Amino acid sequence: MSQAITLGAIADFLGGACIGDPALEIRGIAPIDTAQPHEITFAASKQYEFQLADSRAGAVIINQSSSAPRPAHGVVVANAYLAYAQLSKLFETRPVPAARVHPSAVIHPSAQLAAGVSIGPHCVIEADVIIGEDVQLLAGAFIGCRSTLGASVVIFPNVVIYHDVHIGARSRIHANSTIGSDGFGYAPTPHGWQKIHQLGGVRIGSDVEIGANTAIDRGALEPTELADGVIIDNQVHIAHNVKIGKNTAIAGCVGIAGSTQVGANCTMGGFVAINGHLEIADNVHFNGGSIVTKSIAESGHYSSGTLLQDVKTWRRNAVRFGQLDEWIGRLKRIENSLQQDQ
Amino acid sequence: MSQAITLGAIADFLGGACIGDPALEIRGIAPIDTAQPHEITFAASKQYEFQLADSRAGAVIINQSSSAPRPAHGVVVANAYLAYAQLSKLFETRPVPAARVHPSAVIHPSAQLAAGVSIGPHCVIEADVIIGEDVQLLAGAFIGCRSTLGASVVIFPNVVIYHDVHIGARSRIHANSTIGSDGFGYAPTPHGWQKIHQLGGVRIGSDVEIGANTAIDRGALEPTELADGVIIDNQVHIAHNVKIGKNTAIAGCVGIAGSTQVGANCTMGGFVAINGHLEIADNVHFNGGSIVTKSIAESGHYSSGTLLQDVKTWRRNAVRFGQLDEWIGRLKRIENSLQQDQ
Amino acid sequence: MSQAITLGAIADFLGGACIGDPALEIRGIAPIDTAQPHEITFAASKQYEFQLADSRAGAVIINQSSSAPRPAHGVVVANAYLAYAQLSKLFETRPVPAARVHPSAVIHPSAQLAAGVSIGPHCVIEADVIIGEDVQLLAGAFIGCRSTLGASVVIFPNVVIYHDVHIGARSRIHANSTIGSDGFGYAPTPHGWQKIHQLGGVRIGSDVEIGANTAIDRGALEPTELADGVIIDNQVHIAHNVKIGKNTAIAGCVGIAGSTQVGANCTMGGFVAINGHLEIADNVHFNGGSIVTKSIAESGHYSSGTLLQDVKTWRRNAVRFGQLDEWIGRLKRIENSLQQDQ
Repeated sequence: MSQAITLGAIADFLGGACIGDPALEIRGIAPIDTAQPHEITFAASKQYEFQLADSRAGAVIINQSSSAPRPAHGVVVANAYLAYAQLSKLFETRPVPAARVHPSAVIHPSAQLAAGVSIGPHCVIEADVIIGEDVQLLAGAFIGCRSTLGASVVIFPNVVIYHDVHIGARSRIHANSTIGSDGFGYAPTPHGWQKIHQLGGVRIGSDVEIGANTAIDRGALEPTELADGVIIDNQVHIAHNVKIGKNTAIAGCVGIAGSTQVGANCTMGGFVAINGHLEIADNVHFNGGSIVTKSIAESGHYSSGTLLQDVKTWRRNAVRFGQLDEWIGRLKRIENSLQQDQ
Repeated sequence: MSQAITLGAIADFLGGACIGDPALEIRGIAPIDTAQPHEITFAASKQYEFQLADSRAGAVIINQSSSAPRPAHGVVVANAYLAYAQLSKLFETRPVPAARVHPSAVIHPSAQLAAGVSIGPHCVIEADVIIGEDVQLLAGAFIGCRSTLGASVVIFPNVVIYHDVHIGARSRIHANSTIGSDGFGYAPTPHGWQKIHQLGGVRIGSDVEIGANTAIDRGALEPTELADGVIIDNQVHIAHNVKIGKNTAIAGCVGIAGSTQVGANCTMGGFVAINGHLEIADNVHFNGGSIVTKSIAESGHYSSGTLLQDVKTWRRNAVRFGQLDEWIGRLKRIENSLQQDQ
Repeated sequence: MSQAITLGAIADFLGGACIGDPALEIRGIAPIDTAQPHEITFAASKQYEFQLADSRAGAVIINQSSSAPRPAHGVVVANAYLAYAQLSKLFETRPVPAARVHPSAVIHPSAQLAAGVSIGPHCVIEADVIIGEDVQLLAGAFIGCRSTLGASVVIFPNVVIYHDVHIGARSRIHANSTIGSDGFGYAPTPHGWQKIHQLGGVRIGSDVEIGANTAIDRGALEPTELADGVIIDNQVHIAHNVKIGKNTAIAGCVGIAGSTQVGANCTMGGFVAINGHLEIADNVHFNGGSIVTKSIAESGHYSSGTLLQDVKTWRRNAVRFGQLDEWIGRLKRIENSLQQDQ
């Protein structure tokens, strides 16, 4: 169990107003329905406020705008969900590794390591790499030559970063992800595919987070680019020369084909598939599973696909989809014959 | 080639009746059309029974219920396919690693290793980890602090298991998979995304198998959970706080978004995408490629999507889909005008 | 920056005709709009030829058939795009690792290493592995027992190759990919799933390239097979006993289910999902996102799915899709009633 923090200290940390006993000791955060007397919870919306009466939570973070009865102990803030997000950092359970270079790591003598770095067991750092202050490289991570990691970057175990990849401060890359692998570029010949060597690297901004088992390819001639604040989930595929704008959020299993440019503040649900060489404007939102085959110039909310049905009904409809143009032709002929009748 | 097993020993192992020579030496299992005289095959259905006459197999596993002519040598069982599955274990080709800790493994002194464990080269085991009897940790695997592995668990090379992950007995996790990475949780702010630290771990039951390059995120506050007997294929994404019921089977490239609860004995074809915060009942079956955007309260078989066509026909139909509501409006107007005529 | 190559040497390498100064020093390749005077670019189509006048490139690779004004310096070739692909090799930025076995690698004494191999830090090579000449095994790669790598194969960091996997000459496998993990095979029982041990290996031809974070399963009884010249992108899932024909190209996030046979010279866009036990002819092309549920006997271009729309319009149409068979029934009734009227 985590160390205790007083309710007063939490209110100070969040810049909120303390209700009840500021000396109350809090040892964790929990959902409203399972929180115990030593834990704090949060009521981010009306739906949760209704459950407050039944909660055993020791304290509650609530919205200033809430008209629900105030809890006995808690913190009043402008935005309870944001306050929860901020507070979660204090209860982080992952131990911070000591600042040291593990003796099993293999580090090229030309690599530069700033103060406070932690290099885990079996890491490999190639020539001319530059590692910023307080970077954490967890076990088995690989950093290819000439790549650079900004201050406080965290690279989780077994991540592979190829050569010429540049990652901004405070960015985090989860386990088993790959950054800078070759883009999928080949020229057709009568005898098969002629590989196009991928000479561009990758540029990733600051405060970017990339999930587990995600792959981001290096560019063909110029770098693939992710702007500051981009967040990417697990199992995502970003092809060569894609550019992603600031603060765009990409859910799991998305794939973006080569040279597509995505604007800032976009959101993509899971399994969005975007063709290559497209331009997507700022503030575009795609439903999960959307297949995007044309550029989107206007911000807005887009989707493709069909809805789930029981398989018998679905099959009948899917067969009809395959005849749709034909049936609409028949509908037009009826319209025409009726117009002639009039 | 594997060591020989006599047909009689195979019949005993399967609890079936031996036909022909129990001393016949069998050195492998093979499909009915390629099996050689030193190999055993199986006829799991009528389709295969028809091929028996042409097979060169030395022996055949057949269903008791089969009315096909009995082979010269073989084993009669209640369920030939299940018998093949059971028998496959005897012919496993992966060498069992010796029970030892490789000197290159880095193991925290507080970690507890039971008898019979095998820890491969370059593994990393952090503080307070507990490893059960006969566990196999293959090369390069990482086990984060406080995680626990039940007896006879097998962790394949380069798997990363974060902190506070608990895995039941006999479960197996294939290479390059990640368990316990951060869930994709952020609160929006005017300046970008505020990370929500992910404090829950993962609880995986016994007899679970997880494929290669799959990622299962840790929970936000409470653990992500997989019940006993769940089987998961490659390239799957399980988001934070998902719960999967007993014996549910999940094929490759599936993604399940945060906090969704899936019942027991469900099956998902490849590329099924399930939205977050849904509840899926027991015994629900999704066709491959289904996009699930609502809860399913009734067991049954569900699907979404359209069928494959040649691209010209498909394009015409897809364009018509985009006008469908309009055309159905025109159809309704015809119906109305015809009714008025009557 | 790369070392300089003279324009004359480039023309010789490409087998093209040099225009302008053969002593001109070229230090890189760049796109037509960003190339600098020390760089060469290429005009692969009319679209690029129009931009030549504005380009600062020091030299240009152009098509012999082009009617655009010849640049001051350049190389004339039969196929400018192919020439660019060939030339890219000379400007490759990844350093070739020295031929040596890193002392931290763990290599079974029975493994055979040919001349010129480079085995990176923390690699693991199991018993009876055979490594061909000039193979590069980058850091953290794992090669299971009895597997073989042909000459000049490149295995990127943290790739896991299980036992009994055979890879032909010059093939390349990118970081964090897995070859030879267990196929997803289980027999149902009243108490859950009975694992079918996967005894087949994987056979990969020569000149195959496999992207990052891709997983290719071993066969159940006989090997999974990729023919010569196959190219596969990131995040792809190839199930057990799939066979892929020569020079077939598979884009990111594709999944192919068990025992499906794909012909030669096929192409699949991203997110193509192919059911198990199908046969796909040679020269079949699938649009990205296609779901393939039946065998394809004729070469051609196929697709499934619907087109992207703004979410309001899409939702109306998707609802109508769910009623499609019903509406077509109503359309048929109108047709019938009109025919009776005549």
